[in-house]
Amino acid sequence: MTATRTETDSFGPLEVPTDKYWGAQTQRSIMNFPIGWEKQPVAIVRALGVIKKACAMQNKANGKLDARIADAIIQAAGEVFEGKFDDNFPLVVWQTGSGTQSNMNSNEVIANRAIEILGGEIGSKDPVHPNDHCNMGQSSNDTFPTAMHIAAAMSVRDVLLPGLEKLAEGLEAKSDEFKDIIKIGRTHTQDATPLTLGQEFSGYAHMIRQGIARVKQALPGIYELAQGGTAVGTGLNTAPGWSEAVAANMAEITGLPFVTAPNKFEALSAHDAMVFMSGALATVAGSMYKIANDIRFLGSGPRSGLGELILPENEPGSSIMPGKVNPTQAEAMTQVAAHVMGNDAAMKFAGSQGHFELNVYNPMMSYNLLQSIQLLGDVADSFTLRMLNGIKANEPRIDKLMKESLMLVTALAPTIGYDNATKVAKTAHKNGTTLKEEAIALGFVDAETFDAVVRPEQMIGPKS
Amino acid sequence: MTATRTETDSFGPLEVPTDKYWGAQTQRSIMNFPIGWEKQPVAIVRALGVIKKACAMQNKANGKLDARIADAIIQAAGEVFEGKFDDNFPLVVWQTGSGTQSNMNSNEVIANRAIEILGGEIGSKDPVHPNDHCNMGQSSNDTFPTAMHIAAAMSVRDVLLPGLEKLAEGLEAKSDEFKDIIKIGRTHTQDATPLTLGQEFSGYAHMIRQGIARVKQALPGIYELAQGGTAVGTGLNTAPGWSEAVAANMAEITGLPFVTAPNKFEALSAHDAMVFMSGALATVAGSMYKIANDIRFLGSGPRSGLGELILPENEPGSSIMPGKVNPTQAEAMTQVAAHVMGNDAAMKFAGSQGHFELNVYNPMMSYNLLQSIQLLGDVADSFTLRMLNGIKANEPRIDKLMKESLMLVTALAPTIGYDNATKVAKTAHKNGTTLKEEAIALGFVDAETFDAVVRPEQMIGPKS
Amino acid sequence: MTATRTETDSFGPLEVPTDKYWGAQTQRSIMNFPIGWEKQPVAIVRALGVIKKACAMQNKANGKLDARIADAIIQAAGEVFEGKFDDNFPLVVWQTGSGTQSNMNSNEVIANRAIEILGGEIGSKDPVHPNDHCNMGQSSNDTFPTAMHIAAAMSVRDVLLPGLEKLAEGLEAKSDEFKDIIKIGRTHTQDATPLTLGQEFSGYAHMIRQGIARVKQALPGIYELAQGGTAVGTGLNTAPGWSEAVAANMAEITGLPFVTAPNKFEALSAHDAMVFMSGALATVAGSMYKIANDIRFLGSGPRSGLGELILPENEPGSSIMPGKVNPTQAEAMTQVAAHVMGNDAAMKFAGSQGHFELNVYNPMMSYNLLQSIQLLGDVADSFTLRMLNGIKANEPRIDKLMKESLMLVTALAPTIGYDNATKVAKTAHKNGTTLKEEAIALGFVDAETFDAVVRPEQMIGPKS
Amino acid sequence: MTATRTETDSFGPLEVPTDKYWGAQTQRSIMNFPIGWEKQPVAIVRALGVIKKACAMQNKANGKLDARIADAIIQAAGEVFEGKFDDNFPLVVWQTGSGTQSNMNSNEVIANRAIEILGGEIGSKDPVHPNDHCNMGQSSNDTFPTAMHIAAAMSVRDVLLPGLEKLAEGLEAKSDEFKDIIKIGRTHTQDATPLTLGQEFSGYAHMIRQGIARVKQALPGIYELAQGGTAVGTGLNTAPGWSEAVAANMAEITGLPFVTAPNKFEALSAHDAMVFMSGALATVAGSMYKIANDIRFLGSGPRSGLGELILPENEPGSSIMPGKVNPTQAEAMTQVAAHVMGNDAAMKFAGSQGHFELNVYNPMMSYNLLQSIQLLGDVADSFTLRMLNGIKANEPRIDKLMKESLMLVTALAPTIGYDNATKVAKTAHKNGTTLKEEAIALGFVDAETFDAVVRPEQMIGPKS
Repeated sequence: MTATRTETDSFGPLEVPTDKYWGAQTQRSIMNFPIGWEKQPVAIVRALGVIKKACAMQNKANGKLDARIADAIIQAAGEVFEGKFDDNFPLVVWQTGSGTQSNMNSNEVIANRAIEILGGEIGSKDPVHPNDHCNMGQSSNDTFPTAMHIAAAMSVRDVLLPGLEKLAEGLEAKSDEFKDIIKIGRTHTQDATPLTLGQEFSGYAHMIRQGIARVKQALPGIYELAQGGTAVGTGLNTAPGWSEAVAANMAEITGLPFVTAPNKFEALSAHDAMVFMSGALATVAGSMYKIANDIRFLGSGPRSGLGELILPENEPGSSIMPGKVNPTQAEAMTQVAAHVMGNDAAMKFAGSQGHFELNVYNPMMSYNLLQSIQLLGDVADSFTLRMLNGIKANEPRIDKLMKESLMLVTALAPTIGYDNATKVAKTAHKNGTTLKEEAIALGFVDAETFDAVVRPEQMIGPKS
Repeated sequence: MTATRTETDSFGPLEVPTDKYWGAQTQRSIMNFPIGWEKQPVAIVRALGVIKKACAMQNKANGKLDARIADAIIQAAGEVFEGKFDDNFPLVVWQTGSGTQSNMNSNEVIANRAIEILGGEIGSKDPVHPNDHCNMGQSSNDTFPTAMHIAAAMSVRDVLLPGLEKLAEGLEAKSDEFKDIIKIGRTHTQDATPLTLGQEFSGYAHMIRQGIARVKQALPGIYELAQGGTAVGTGLNTAPGWSEAVAANMAEITGLPFVTAPNKFEALSAHDAMVFMSGALATVAGSMYKIANDIRFLGSGPRSGLGELILPENEPGSSIMPGKVNPTQAEAMTQVAAHVMGNDAAMKFAGSQGHFELNVYNPMMSYNLLQSIQLLGDVADSFTLRMLNGIKANEPRIDKLMKESLMLVTALAPTIGYDNATKVAKTAHKNGTTLKEEAIALGFVDAETFDAVVRPEQMIGPKS
Repeated sequence: MTATRTETDSFGPLEVPTDKYWGAQTQRSIMNFPIGWEKQPVAIVRALGVIKKACAMQNKANGKLDARIADAIIQAAGEVFEGKFDDNFPLVVWQTGSGTQSNMNSNEVIANRAIEILGGEIGSKDPVHPNDHCNMGQSSNDTFPTAMHIAAAMSVRDVLLPGLEKLAEGLEAKSDEFKDIIKIGRTHTQDATPLTLGQEFSGYAHMIRQGIARVKQALPGIYELAQGGTAVGTGLNTAPGWSEAVAANMAEITGLPFVTAPNKFEALSAHDAMVFMSGALATVAGSMYKIANDIRFLGSGPRSGLGELILPENEPGSSIMPGKVNPTQAEAMTQVAAHVMGNDAAMKFAGSQGHFELNVYNPMMSYNLLQSIQLLGDVADSFTLRMLNGIKANEPRIDKLMKESLMLVTALAPTIGYDNATKVAKTAHKNGTTLKEEAIALGFVDAETFDAVVRPEQMIGPKS
Repeated sequence: MTATRTETDSFGPLEVPTDKYWGAQTQRSIMNFPIGWEKQPVAIVRALGVIKKACAMQNKANGKLDARIADAIIQAAGEVFEGKFDDNFPLVVWQTGSGTQSNMNSNEVIANRAIEILGGEIGSKDPVHPNDHCNMGQSSNDTFPTAMHIAAAMSVRDVLLPGLEKLAEGLEAKSDEFKDIIKIGRTHTQDATPLTLGQEFSGYAHMIRQGIARVKQALPGIYELAQGGTAVGTGLNTAPGWSEAVAANMAEITGLPFVTAPNKFEALSAHDAMVFMSGALATVAGSMYKIANDIRFLGSGPRSGLGELILPENEPGSSIMPGKVNPTQAEAMTQVAAHVMGNDAAMKFAGSQGHFELNVYNPMMSYNLLQSIQLLGDVADSFTLRMLNGIKANEPRIDKLMKESLMLVTALAPTIGYDNATKVAKTAHKNGTTLKEEAIALGFVDAETFDAVVRPEQMIGPKS
């Protein structure tokens, strides 16, 4: 039997575990939403700490809130921000669509912790009331969207961008390492004209660099905070200047350039900044998919695949095939990418479904977005560290495949015309011979000209 | 200047081209919805012909409609069904969400054509009125969903299933043709234990066979028709037995087993049968994607890819690379598959968005579903005819890749244990040697045992 | 400091916590995949227990495995199935795409537990080896897809269908309770002809009944198991009859009608049965979305909305607006529905991405599907219990809205014609008068006829 | 019988209609891809004209191409750009994934037209060859992606942005018109605190303004052109400076700030700029969905809905319910939005599926993106013109709903505390009384205080 105390809300009393700081509304939510296994992400909990602290600071500054109470709230909220109460946020994602219950969870935990700090009795709402004090000047309707933005911005900064940066650098390093290795190009999955392996990796690197840029393009919208809109966007129960002041406090607490949203009606009733960010995430997920997929194909083998890359071996690959090694980090990356695209579809849907003054898909949308951010950042880091950095070029294989290719004939086209060059390639293909043999046999060029014109190292860039 | 006549609806008179049979509501829709380039699919037009004919038959049978008028409507509607008036349906998809204007388009065309048959003046609504007679006992709210189901069912029968059947048969034929060709298997894109090329194609064939079965599983819901629900599902302005009778007429006209929907409130306010069908389509699209993608990789080359399959050449492949041939039918198939998945996402979204007694995403949903049906059927047919049927196995290449594989070591595992087999494979990989050499060198087996145990032809099925 | 023991795999030794049964490959996976917060679902763990038990039973029966070892494995695997080792499965979703590491996790836990049962030393692989014994006749490539199907089938049976059944029954009960309440219909969100509230709920109930039927239609594919395909679908290292026997064992253990998949190449390289099930789930999610959305609108108010339904109050609704009560269960349901649609998009994508003999999106696909199953089942249950069952009709309000409606004019159309009825409605709308007043004033009917014809209770069904 | 002439490609001769300018490769594509009803969008055709002209200009400038031939190509390509040959582009979307056949279609049409200009024989390839001259320095692999970007950029400029701008201005005008109308707010679809109707519309306007900004943020990536990458991104067969020069020419021809893409390997093998744009489009589609959905609900009625807005009547609404008027422009908009989200899902998928040096989903991706651009632009324009601009506020109704609301109690909370305010609201709800009556009866305030505090006009903004 867990020891309990009695907590009360407007619906009546409820028993709450003694060792937890939450109150009746949190407990009621546990009872009312036994749905799924997905808890509110920790990033949301921490962001609620930021908000409650920032608001108490301003409520103290403008004299609305007794300084002693304010200071206790500031301390308690700061502890939530620092992660000391992560285990006091038991609520699931699938609750009220405004996130009211998680907002109240933070109000209740902070109120009780502040009461404790002030020597009061936990559960008494005295001298700190979860609504009147911790939620002062706030509504769930502006608070939770604010928490969504803060959590997203912190996760982008702390997880996603470092992961993508590491991936981009890893690809650039490989591009440089492989800059002199000429290989066959492949278009339509078929043999094409040559390029360097470094050029191929430069394309990958550029994709991720663009992805980073796109994520950053989507950040300014995330930095705009709904806080101050209160119930419907009007700012009822706030004082002039409140929105700007609390946004400034949140910026200071987190070190991120948060500002107040220019239109709070939009900020409550739509989550388009999140939806747009999701689009940026799905775009970079697509890049990562393409890169990881290419790499596993280029590294396919060891004997019966393309075999151009040698991939690092991290673990046994098969429970039945001894000695098998698989591109498992690429598989993690492509699985993440596919999942992120599903999340994006859900974000697009939910983002369109606001009714009147409120979009009530808050917990679901923040769960999806934060998951995408975390997964992309984590997998970019892991893939770089455990796969990309260890990739080696199989140079003899690359050279062999390149030199046998019929598509080197493209270099002949400006000299003998497209139609004749086609004949050379088709004849060589049919006869299993070389381009040179057939080009000469068909009378289009002599050997010397062929050698002068068909030079792979001359085919990897523009030529005067 | 196009010659016009005056047509009138409850909003007033409008000029309509003299050489067209449509009336004021159609013309008004042309003016009010200058959106996009997507017209109502022909299958919808034909299905409206079916409905109008079936309803007039029953209105005649139960004496509600003067026989002479009914017969003229039956004739005119029959002509719409047969395609004689396809060019009299100019409306776009992006109109009223109930499809009212396309329903009125059919009422107007049929009324004017029936007036013509009866020697009256086109545009006079006398002796045939588009609402009172052509729409008798009907509402757009039951008629358009009925048209959606009829159009889908006819397209599935006439386009999709024949295409899938041809594809399945083509795959089965190849599976049979290739049944004795042992090749390397690939898992994680990496070398794995062998199988026959016929077995590989049997998997493809089974996917399509399952796809056909899934489409057929989704058909009974499509065969249920909303007709008879009229405005909100109650059947207001119909007589008892109407629903059953008109469904029977539609079944007779089309040769498809249509029945009346058991619950008309569901049939008007949701389109779940269409959504479920879309899921079946997207599933088979996924199968087709996988098959086409595998085939282009297995046929990659001609010299620097996997090269196990020789793909037919249908057209020049490149405007710059002479002699290049590409797997273009596979590309059409994978593009279609990706597009169908987008359509499926749109169907899922729109299907959930019914409000109260009506889902108003009718034209958009039927456009998406009919497009998916058409594209999958067409591409299955084209891919089979122009690519699949012409595929040849590159047997020397297949044999070489298979015999070099290290994964034949799996056959040793039951004899020498997983850990020792792993050592053999890893050592051979490291040294660039054969499994046999290393298995003997490591002292796990003698040559005779190796030869007895590692036999690819013994690795392609269970073994007592 | 956690106490550890040394475990070894083909990549070398690793330290593993002493109080856990897993071995080196599990530990290696923990180290190699620090990605995200999503663990393998418990349903997968239990399903792996089923498989390992079923295979050991057959390995014992056919004499391949020493009976003493087999019995220990059977006991240990049974314990995994019963949930005794849930905390010994620490791996994340984002690992190798075949799920190899989770398969090895089960092999290692079961091997060590079996060693313990037999009095051996944990970690010694003696007398029970995770690969040679626990994985005997198996590959991750057939085992994990089998686990996916078993987990899905069990969750559908235990969570989803009970939830949907409860929801359908709840809707049917309300349909019956409300069968005599005539209300205004709404199409295009606008006033339309009347129906009963019971009819409206009958549509909802029918949607869920159809949803249940669709899920059941998708189950036979789920009941087909890949087990016996081993590495690439050929059944290498199994004996004839193995597939059938182990499927029968799994059926017996779970009480579900599992059979062996007719084509193992398909079963390993595609997951179409899962994709099709996902489509069924997304379809019923769409139904649930529509129902929950309607209900929150019909229950909107309390004073300034439609107000036809009185929704139960479960918790305080707002942290700023005192006394506010919100349709939170409907919000949980619509959030779940949106999320399930995202999962469906991810399933469609990943399902199409198998390469050659294997689709390597296993953990991601099973995570998505199992999450959808769980969420839909849970929310159906919670919504029914906490919202639907407590809904009351606001009869005075319903009656008032119905009687004021202009759309009752539809009943007049068969008598005075569509065009005249239109004039009546438009005039009444313009003048703010009643239909009766205007119908008489316009000279179309007398009062007696009006009263005889325009009777809401006569408008809710066909009429002879 | 259509008169024909013989055209030839490397696969042999084919009969082509005499009255068309296309050649053998176009004709072959017609025969090889009988798939679906979707033609290449006109915007692609025009963009190909831009490219061919720009390249011929540079080929002339650098002396590679005879001036007489170059001038003829420049003229012919200019005519394609101006739309004179739209009916000479018969190919479908579902062709080779590189768009090679549409590139050749443009080469063939322009070559034959240039031959005609120069007095040669159409079909002779003399003096203008479709590959050697029209395609000089180009490959389909860089040309078609360039066409995709040019077409998208032109459509965004000419269709999308004007439509969105008009919509934003329309919403801002209504926001201004309605700025003094205080109405009830609604959150969770339930009554909430008041705001002005102007504030509500300001939120809508801000969504579209942000949408415009997001589309513009995505444009720089679209302005980067692949041209110059030729076959695999290396620029083989081009001279140094070519890429920059042709991009400058294209910028001049179109008046758009095109530049050469910084990394051609990325530009050919991924279409991330298109994918990112698609995300921006889907985001604004979500905004439009929300706005249109709100407006149809706020305008629901005319008698039994919310009835706050009076919507313009554009056409008869129902074929069975006389006098019914429906929010059809809102329905067109929400259908478009749902469709665009499907397109976005398809874009995300296809964008991730590039293999090695080329993404072969070109025609499908450009079709989807161009359709989304066109539909959003068109529907924004139509909705503004035919619905938004005609909306009137139903002021008496708005005032009544607002004054009856219980949520005005929120204004009391700072005075009497959240818990007491809750009691007031709940008691008034239970008794069907006013807040004032119950606030006094419960002894929390006197009448004077109540009147001083609960003033809707004081609740629509922050207050010192």
